[in-house]
Amino acid sequence: MNNTKAVIITIGDELLIGQVIDTNSAWIAQQLNVLGIDILRRVAIGDSKESIVSALDEESKHADIILLTGGLGPTADDITKPVLCAYFGGKLVVDEAVLTHVKDIFTRRNRPMLERNLKQAEVPDVCTVIPNKLGTAPGMLFEQGGKIIVSMPGVPFEMKGMMTAVLLPMFAKRFQQSNSIIHRNILTFGEGESFLAEKIKDIESSLPEYIKLAYLPAPYAVRLRLTAHGKDEQALITETENFRDALAARVADHVVSFDDRSLEEIVGNLLKKNKLTICLAESCTGGYITHKLTQNDGASQYLKAAVVSYATEAKVKILNIDADLIKQHGVVSEAIAIAMAQSSRTIMNTDIGFGVTGILSNSPYEDASPVGTVFIAVANKDKVMSKQYRLHYDRIQNKETAAQIALYMIWRFITTYSI
Amino acid sequence: MNNTKAVIITIGDELLIGQVIDTNSAWIAQQLNVLGIDILRRVAIGDSKESIVSALDEESKHADIILLTGGLGPTADDITKPVLCAYFGGKLVVDEAVLTHVKDIFTRRNRPMLERNLKQAEVPDVCTVIPNKLGTAPGMLFEQGGKIIVSMPGVPFEMKGMMTAVLLPMFAKRFQQSNSIIHRNILTFGEGESFLAEKIKDIESSLPEYIKLAYLPAPYAVRLRLTAHGKDEQALITETENFRDALAARVADHVVSFDDRSLEEIVGNLLKKNKLTICLAESCTGGYITHKLTQNDGASQYLKAAVVSYATEAKVKILNIDADLIKQHGVVSEAIAIAMAQSSRTIMNTDIGFGVTGILSNSPYEDASPVGTVFIAVANKDKVMSKQYRLHYDRIQNKETAAQIALYMIWRFITTYSI
Repeated sequence: MNNTKAVIITIGDELLIGQVIDTNSAWIAQQLNVLGIDILRRVAIGDSKESIVSALDEESKHADIILLTGGLGPTADDITKPVLCAYFGGKLVVDEAVLTHVKDIFTRRNRPMLERNLKQAEVPDVCTVIPNKLGTAPGMLFEQGGKIIVSMPGVPFEMKGMMTAVLLPMFAKRFQQSNSIIHRNILTFGEGESFLAEKIKDIESSLPEYIKLAYLPAPYAVRLRLTAHGKDEQALITETENFRDALAARVADHVVSFDDRSLEEIVGNLLKKNKLTICLAESCTGGYITHKLTQNDGASQYLKAAVVSYATEAKVKILNIDADLIKQHGVVSEAIAIAMAQSSRTIMNTDIGFGVTGILSNSPYEDASPVGTVFIAVANKDKVMSKQYRLHYDRIQNKETAAQIALYMIWRFITTYSI
Repeated sequence: MNNTKAVIITIGDELLIGQVIDTNSAWIAQQLNVLGIDILRRVAIGDSKESIVSALDEESKHADIILLTGGLGPTADDITKPVLCAYFGGKLVVDEAVLTHVKDIFTRRNRPMLERNLKQAEVPDVCTVIPNKLGTAPGMLFEQGGKIIVSMPGVPFEMKGMMTAVLLPMFAKRFQQSNSIIHRNILTFGEGESFLAEKIKDIESSLPEYIKLAYLPAPYAVRLRLTAHGKDEQALITETENFRDALAARVADHVVSFDDRSLEEIVGNLLKKNKLTICLAESCTGGYITHKLTQNDGASQYLKAAVVSYATEAKVKILNIDADLIKQHGVVSEAIAIAMAQSSRTIMNTDIGFGVTGILSNSPYEDASPVGTVFIAVANKDKVMSKQYRLHYDRIQNKETAAQIALYMIWRFITTYSI
């Protein structure tokens, strides 16, 4: 395992008081991983000179690449640039290309240019500038003792722009790996981590030392991930996929996909592939399932509409569900989930309809069902699939879980009935 | 600044290949901050003995408290417990209380008990067990050289359960701070970071050394955060709030709230306080705004329903918008956003209606508007507020931004017309 080693350092007091969640690190890790570059560690530190200097000192002992994000804004709390300039023994000079770019941005946005924005065109004279097409703060690349240190803005799309356009191609060229790194995934649904592990323990213990198995649990779902290191990429792929197939065969009832994709992408792709349209009726999940499906590119090919019938009267007024049916069964019931699925299909004339109704937390609801009760139904013109679940988490986690189960049920409906 | 110092170490290979986003750290940081405990650093490492040991060695040089999460599951890739046991010189013994608890969980879930689950009842004999009411892996607290080291599961609600029930009260008692730490926030909307900074620069430079100002930018929004350290808490609060009020007065047109809450919470609370009901019609945002509002506890008090009219025909069939009006103006137009707002209000007879239509990415749409065009409208029975925006990000970021603007527009509508 002599892969190139990288460390990610995220800079910003807001990370240490929990005011923002760091999503940059996961994205960077995924991209480097594809190139066979291992992430050793991720470190989050505050906007202080001491923290930045000591993190650079410490991490450069082990890493070939250090990627820093954050602290490059135009305001006084952003100190990364002068600290790096001093650390690498340079001085700040105006970069004409950056200056022109910053001026252009302000002209295009019809905003006056401020002195502090002009300052963003200053860069250490010991760095290579990485252009930031999507913002005003340039990236900076330093080389020292055979190591590469890059500073990028913390704004996610600006950072991603720089990585995609400049850094990833550069790393790919420079750090040609003698070792390959291969990941293969199995997304399973409906079986706990321990039970999966028990069913596959003989396969797991037969894995060679250079192939590792990890369990990535989420509510109701576990992703099994095989990671293999080796020299002969083709042989490694074959061997890893053989193990994957053996694992999948052992837990076949629970396998959803080999794709390293989210459940909403898998469901979206299945709908697209089978040329199916869908309309959803969501109650307790409040539009979250529809939001997830519309995160997918090209969702308009299958998603026609959704109704978030949060109040009981919305089920009557928008979905045309019989008020007597609601009175008879209660609004949180299998009958109403099925009525929602059928009605949502009918109102938009889609191939598939979907309904979910439940109680995710203590509420002033009149319904008698216990907290955590959720009914989910999927229907087409001939068939209905429905099921009751009982969730045990808090409100937010119950919503997340119900949405995952819902996406799984849609997947299951389509694959079971081969529609 | 002699506050107690804490470090968070998150353990798991999945963090280093970017397969999961760490949300635990932000939550932990927020909770400790309330107690006046500063987070020095956050470190993410893989499931390896060397990484865990070297992180413990390194971080215990500076921290009084080290909180570890992850690697306590029942499968072979989870090695945190034996590594900690060896590190602190203990041996694993069965804890009878944990064993009873684990057995209870399996009985309640009607699942057979596996050998590997029994193993979860083993704990190092040199630790204090922290009960995990919501799962099978117990927490472990070690003390060494006046420092506290705690290992918790990575599953968010299990970790939160332990922190809330046991650790936070313990820390509060043990680390009575001689210094207080005070945060005061101003959420602003519609003005860029540089322009805000320019308007308040004299106030910023007049801040005493023990009060820091940070800018936390998000698309269209910037949160200004004052952080003050000092001995006399009441005097510190008064002084910090005076500075906050001076800053707010300077940028009054852009101030939304002093609450350290998300925009959806602020809007939800405003609706609740004014006893207003709302129905939304979302097109390009695909249910995301409704999802955000239903993250709030008690959302059913104001949210009656929403229609995600993703396809053009959904605007006709569910929202009853005149097809000729769509033909005349195009589906991405101010007229249609207003029609959506008015129709959503009418179909559910709510106080407020809302509409958003736009193009967030290149799509097979027939519409002539350029990518990034979004029209947003809010209406009650007498008034309408509508506006066109032009967003410049990618699909996901445009959706996020449109949702933020939408929530802001609802806030602005209610506060402007004092309804």
